Amino acid sequence: MPKLYWEDFTTGQVAEYGPQEVSAEDIKAFAAEFDPQPMHLDEEAARATMVGGLCASGWHTCAIMMRIAADGFILESSSMGATGCEEVKWLAPVRPGDRLRVRVEVLDTRPSASRPGMGFVNARFDVLNAEDVRVMTLTTHLIFGRRPTAPAAEAGGPRARAAGA
Amino acid sequence: MPKLYWEDFTTGQVAEYGPQEVSAEDIKAFAAEFDPQPMHLDEEAARATMVGGLCASGWHTCAIMMRIAADGFILESSSMGATGCEEVKWLAPVRPGDRLRVRVEVLDTRPSASRPGMGFVNARFDVLNAEDVRVMTLTTHLIFGRRPTAPAAEAGGPRARAAGA
Repeated sequence: MPKLYWEDFTTGQVAEYGPQEVSAEDIKAFAAEFDPQPMHLDEEAARATMVGGLCASGWHTCAIMMRIAADGFILESSSMGATGCEEVKWLAPVRPGDRLRVRVEVLDTRPSASRPGMGFVNARFDVLNAEDVRVMTLTTHLIFGRRPTAPAAEAGGPRARAAGA
Repeated sequence: MPKLYWEDFTTGQVAEYGPQEVSAEDIKAFAAEFDPQPMHLDEEAARATMVGGLCASGWHTCAIMMRIAADGFILESSSMGATGCEEVKWLAPVRPGDRLRVRVEVLDTRPSASRPGMGFVNARFDVLNAEDVRVMTLTTHLIFGRRPTAPAAEAGGPRARAAGA
């Protein structure tokens, strides 16, 4: 049974998860599979690029962020996925040896109008390194199941109200 | 030497790259490392979720999109990376066996005001499956190097103009 439901997320909540360390091998393995540009694949070639040395693909940083969030709270929640993201910004390079944390701030929440068992949570995810530099930020639209109501309450109010929303 | 420079991208250009096939093993391997939610990790558990069966993590779809774009044009370009994305929408599940293509439309381009050797390209990336269903869309802000000018021309116009931009 999930520990966290939609009702457990409230506007203004801030929590932090991680850290997770990123190695040069992690960076190069992700790049070899998904983003084989020189700055992500090879130290020597990366030195000649604008970022001046090996750094993680922005999509790798997204994937690491997801893993930190999964371990931090998603896997113990009623998560039903996400519809998308806005304002994805790769602000600073993620380097070998970086220890990344994810700070999550709940921006707003609303119940689904069409599905009474479901609700939405909009949240900002900031990815920070050990020096507290924000290396990435995005906002995302998460979906969570709502906390099941007790049978007596369910027969009466909430579900009937939600159906009219 | 790159074949494509910033100058080769013009507003309204549309191109399509891929396909790349996604296997159940790919989906589960990415999920095990980065997004171990039941709908991405295990067929049996996925059937009980809202999406009704195994589907790729949205971040996996982003990573596959990146690889298709890399093989399609990024690796033969003067790409210097990207600053971020907007309007990332996961529109439909990516299933085992899907063959994904990426359609790229150039939305607008502008030279860098501060760095004469660099320019920006805003583009929409749509990820399509074999049935032409758009499974993901996003817009992204790409950075490319500008085509080197011939020594004679460089002494005269373009660089001097760019410095005043």
